[in-house]
Amino acid sequence: MSLKKIGQQTWALGSEVRVLSSAAVVGPKEGKGLLKDDYDVVYPDLYAGQDTWERAERKMMEDAVDFAIHKSGVDRRDIELYIAGDLLNQNITASFSARTNQLPFIGVFGACSTSMQSVTLAAALIDGGFIDRALVAVSSHNATAEKQFRYPTEYGSQRPATSGWTTTGAGAAVLGEGKIGPRVTYCTVGKVVDWGIQNPDDLGSAMAPAAVDTIVTHFSDTGRTPDDYDLVVTGDLRVSGFNIAKGLLRQKKIAVDERFQDCGLMIYSPEQKDYGGGSGCASSAVVTFGHLFRQMARGKYRRILVVATGALYNAVTWRQGESIPCIAHAVSFEMG
Amino acid sequence: MSLKKIGQQTWALGSEVRVLSSAAVVGPKEGKGLLKDDYDVVYPDLYAGQDTWERAERKMMEDAVDFAIHKSGVDRRDIELYIAGDLLNQNITASFSARTNQLPFIGVFGACSTSMQSVTLAAALIDGGFIDRALVAVSSHNATAEKQFRYPTEYGSQRPATSGWTTTGAGAAVLGEGKIGPRVTYCTVGKVVDWGIQNPDDLGSAMAPAAVDTIVTHFSDTGRTPDDYDLVVTGDLRVSGFNIAKGLLRQKKIAVDERFQDCGLMIYSPEQKDYGGGSGCASSAVVTFGHLFRQMARGKYRRILVVATGALYNAVTWRQGESIPCIAHAVSFEMG
Repeated sequence: MSLKKIGQQTWALGSEVRVLSSAAVVGPKEGKGLLKDDYDVVYPDLYAGQDTWERAERKMMEDAVDFAIHKSGVDRRDIELYIAGDLLNQNITASFSARTNQLPFIGVFGACSTSMQSVTLAAALIDGGFIDRALVAVSSHNATAEKQFRYPTEYGSQRPATSGWTTTGAGAAVLGEGKIGPRVTYCTVGKVVDWGIQNPDDLGSAMAPAAVDTIVTHFSDTGRTPDDYDLVVTGDLRVSGFNIAKGLLRQKKIAVDERFQDCGLMIYSPEQKDYGGGSGCASSAVVTFGHLFRQMARGKYRRILVVATGALYNAVTWRQGESIPCIAHAVSFEMG
Repeated sequence: MSLKKIGQQTWALGSEVRVLSSAAVVGPKEGKGLLKDDYDVVYPDLYAGQDTWERAERKMMEDAVDFAIHKSGVDRRDIELYIAGDLLNQNITASFSARTNQLPFIGVFGACSTSMQSVTLAAALIDGGFIDRALVAVSSHNATAEKQFRYPTEYGSQRPATSGWTTTGAGAAVLGEGKIGPRVTYCTVGKVVDWGIQNPDDLGSAMAPAAVDTIVTHFSDTGRTPDDYDLVVTGDLRVSGFNIAKGLLRQKKIAVDERFQDCGLMIYSPEQKDYGGGSGCASSAVVTFGHLFRQMARGKYRRILVVATGALYNAVTWRQGESIPCIAHAVSFEMG
């Protein structure tokens, strides 16, 4: 019997699975943003010393992995599983980084929800007794993503205000049983929600209902309320989607105050043109693995809910007139 | 402690996690092949009643899911997790099918190894106590895959003998604790292996060393030998890769006889031009979920090892001069 499932979609971890270490690396624009002191590396340009943007993104994921492993104090050989994903076709950043680190590998895809999807799987497999330690990593890169999903950045295409700015960077974390570090307590696995938005320049509005669905389900499954959290943070809803999400939450009688935030709206400073806010797998990852876990260690937050949001479309589907299916996965991290 | 891990990369399931039901649906060419009596649906053309190939592939995955659920006798609402993947950019077949079935969803990517990667995760999450029942599904479609990875099929491009024929179809299975059906006993999670092959028309040769690495690790981890299996079947190595794999296994002092087979070499009849053999996520899936599990139910096989193989490249990486990272995941299925 699934003793660890509570409610409809939430897994309650019985053991002390914690984030033993985490790392975040970012591109130059992110390195000038509001969280610039909370990253392990700021690359001086989008190439990160490589000759293609795809190799640059891979280098970023590999560097995040190296930092996370080093900080954990765990011997690389004692990490038993690598779970990773990214936005590029066929998950190449994750797969090529798995070639480099030579760990048993599970590739995952949840678009920009991949960060918390990876943490969920890693924590469950540790709690389930299959492995002691897992490494997770996700990445996105402004130039690789824009070229693949929209237009090469050299075109200088005009973009609407509802667009996101694909965050350049990578986040990685080592999970395992331990006594310090944020503990993974509940993971709420999302369902696909699609309210019919067809505009790939407004993914925030498309994702907002999925974020709300997972947040509401999480509260219902666990019996918790926003008062149980110091922060409830979505992944990359943009200004437009974040406002929609707040409205939908209020409709559901959930009190929305300043504890509700969005990772993509925390990355850049007001002077930096970021359209509707940061987006991409790296949005939730560099904020959570870089900034938020540091804030938890500093005592600012004791318990947070990270709700990573993903738009599960591709460059063919919207041209074929399809709407955009979205998903959100939520993980509760707790100190103590 | 990871009590369920044995050796380096193998998970030993403690509970009676079984394949409660499975289904396989295929395109017209596959429906004229050697296993034509073992599929649940043979579509009369590549469109399956849809107006695009992408929608046709989705319809196939959805149909496979419906058949698998129906055969299991399990109420759809009692299935607690859907794990699915495919070959299309951003996993759209899996994601759109998750919109249709409205189950909590984890998207995975392992290229053509996705079938056994999905089974591994589903079985582990059931064994770990997080869910009672999971649904897995994978698909590939000749026209969507050729267009995306190589050339639109209308071009009629000439292809070398080492090419695979992307199998059109989908496979799905419902897993849960039970008393009948093939039991999942061991899952060996692969590492990425890359011997430097750069030719996307010879993925079989690229994948062969990954298949051998996982097979050798499986035997080493479990203490088993080929004599413990009635069949050891790889996913889609093509004639070229299958011969390389057999040679490498013999180098490792593993006795290779007729118990070693490849799914892609079992699908088409000798009269059907399939270049080096069937390939794609559907290759291992329709053979395993359609043919092999029927043969197990009929008593022909008591214990089989399915080694699904994946080439983790994309249409950009090989043009940028990268070699092709490959992986294989192995699952042991046993009757009784």
